[in-house]
Amino acid sequence: MALHFSEQELAGRRAAACAAMQEQRLDGLLITRQESMFYLTGYDTFGYVYFQCLYLGADGDCFLLTRAPDLRQAKHTSTIAEVHVWKDVEGAEPHRELRDLLHQRGLAGKHLGVEYESYGLTAASGKKLDAALDGFVTLSDASTLVSRLRLIKSSAELGYVRKAGELGDHALAEAHRLARPGADEGEILAAMQAAVFAGGGDYPGNEFIIGSGDDALLCRYKSGRRVLDDVDQLNLEFAGAYRHYHAALFRTVPIGKADPLHIEYHKAAQDALLACEDALTPGHTAGDVFDAHAKVLDAAGLADHRMNACGYSLGTTFAPNWMDWPMLYHGNPVEMRPGMVFFIHIIIFNSDAGIAQCLGRTSIVTETGAESLSTAGLELFLGE
Amino acid sequence: MALHFSEQELAGRRAAACAAMQEQRLDGLLITRQESMFYLTGYDTFGYVYFQCLYLGADGDCFLLTRAPDLRQAKHTSTIAEVHVWKDVEGAEPHRELRDLLHQRGLAGKHLGVEYESYGLTAASGKKLDAALDGFVTLSDASTLVSRLRLIKSSAELGYVRKAGELGDHALAEAHRLARPGADEGEILAAMQAAVFAGGGDYPGNEFIIGSGDDALLCRYKSGRRVLDDVDQLNLEFAGAYRHYHAALFRTVPIGKADPLHIEYHKAAQDALLACEDALTPGHTAGDVFDAHAKVLDAAGLADHRMNACGYSLGTTFAPNWMDWPMLYHGNPVEMRPGMVFFIHIIIFNSDAGIAQCLGRTSIVTETGAESLSTAGLELFLGE
Repeated sequence: MALHFSEQELAGRRAAACAAMQEQRLDGLLITRQESMFYLTGYDTFGYVYFQCLYLGADGDCFLLTRAPDLRQAKHTSTIAEVHVWKDVEGAEPHRELRDLLHQRGLAGKHLGVEYESYGLTAASGKKLDAALDGFVTLSDASTLVSRLRLIKSSAELGYVRKAGELGDHALAEAHRLARPGADEGEILAAMQAAVFAGGGDYPGNEFIIGSGDDALLCRYKSGRRVLDDVDQLNLEFAGAYRHYHAALFRTVPIGKADPLHIEYHKAAQDALLACEDALTPGHTAGDVFDAHAKVLDAAGLADHRMNACGYSLGTTFAPNWMDWPMLYHGNPVEMRPGMVFFIHIIIFNSDAGIAQCLGRTSIVTETGAESLSTAGLELFLGE
Repeated sequence: MALHFSEQELAGRRAAACAAMQEQRLDGLLITRQESMFYLTGYDTFGYVYFQCLYLGADGDCFLLTRAPDLRQAKHTSTIAEVHVWKDVEGAEPHRELRDLLHQRGLAGKHLGVEYESYGLTAASGKKLDAALDGFVTLSDASTLVSRLRLIKSSAELGYVRKAGELGDHALAEAHRLARPGADEGEILAAMQAAVFAGGGDYPGNEFIIGSGDDALLCRYKSGRRVLDDVDQLNLEFAGAYRHYHAALFRTVPIGKADPLHIEYHKAAQDALLACEDALTPGHTAGDVFDAHAKVLDAAGLADHRMNACGYSLGTTFAPNWMDWPMLYHGNPVEMRPGMVFFIHIIIFNSDAGIAQCLGRTSIVTETGAESLSTAGLELFLGE
């Protein structure tokens, strides 16, 4: 049994979810987001690539419907006592099996919430779910019910978050060790990801972003590694991940020689990052944090080279995405609270000049301000 | 520009998709599966974690609607000439922006296919899509239209598939080098994944599965590494990935000393694997391959310890899943054709005895039989 939280803490989370259901007059919740399942029960799998559903009643009743390969997975990783299995055969109808299970519990006519915003419930699967439950129960979208509870981390969770921060710094140290003219991006990625795994960490929710030359102006992973030129730029967005908690970092490393724009943009990026971290305090909103970023960059004449968002919450997200709810963009009313965790990323891309300069790190919101999860310096590092 | 296929090959694939649309009387296709986008245009991103859609008309017309971070990504990795961006603001309605774009092209009243079975189109997003297009066009599920075309690989694709096979063998060599009493699973995972990255390979579509002790009986990734006991068992399901093409392998390594059941089950697993590979020839169906597996294991008295599926197609799948369509289970009528690629996994789990013994590798289907992508031996390897 690989349970990473006390049974008491997991029970407390389920009780909070049940209370939220009662507030929203829901009799139960059909849970399809893997991060919700992990949060409420410990259940840890990528079995959500096929249809599975965790039912949690407002009364605390709980069962899982999944495929055979996840029966043992649920028993080894979670507190879920009741697991039902649907079988792969031509014409399998697992959504109808879910209906039958709900029916056996006397839930006909009840009002259930559904996590429709979920990689674990594709649009095709959602249609089958709606069809199977049509006329049997009333369904409402409750995609953020558990995500809102996940937003503020407990003391045990913050312990894992800090460990993720350490692993992120280990990956950064590997990047600094290897980033130089003639280095192979593939070797750098191998060493960075290995630092996380060797430290007991996990795969990140999405791939590390690694790009150089013109491709340094990308902020997604893509296939195809290259060897760094004598004068080059290497863009790295990555995360330590521990117990699926993420602590992301962002750096652009000039190779061989820094362009004057790298130096100018780095100063602006550092100023913007620190301004955002100043706003990571109770009394500010997610929108305020974004505005702090925009104010600094716009004053530096970089309005055309910045993004429409400057970060997001981090937590126990599963593939394909480590970006958690909510995002930091203009007007977002979510208020900062102690125990929240935000990744601030300052992205400056000048397409005409072909220059990238990005800087980012992750912090815990505390009563008195931002606690950075990284102990690495923010100064411009030159790979030479 | 990081295009991994000739523009001519990509244009040929789009032409085949257009022909399939015409056969199905579709005027166009709303593409949300990242593997379809990569296959048809080269577009390589994890931007599908938010709503994006590639439109391909039966007449060859093509555009992408995505978020700002993917504008450059599309330009650097794909042949898509026309990219539209939707902006993150409170109340953003990208599905309505898609409708407007379709309207400008005179598509009112037309019949469009949709990839509803897609991690890139959550149930919530699918509802918004349906609502935005309701009364404007007729929609039909066409989730497998492109997947069926992807099933048979071209010569260029098979080159990448073979390279993935080499990287998988490198990862296996690292596992054999390190698997011994007292070894840390985290170090083993680090070395295996590093072998793939250092060889220019990609992240796998899902995490490598690594488990030992009781957790060797799991076939999903989970957080939490352990140190191997003096006598132990290490279960490893992993894949080389190159240009997002996968070649998966599966091994159970007894540590210190093999249990007699490991030896007995390994022989059965090897017999079953070879029987499946014999069935990987034109004239057989996916169901026949499964039946070959079941026949061997059932004759060995292992009917209660096997799975309901023994593998699946592999290709350019993106996170969170490397398992491609179709799966090898009883009765599946898909016929084997040259150029298909299948991962055969023989999974034997005896929960009562606490013994796992798994064996698997990936092959190309040829006119004359299975071409294994792995040159590693199938014999039982003891980690000591």
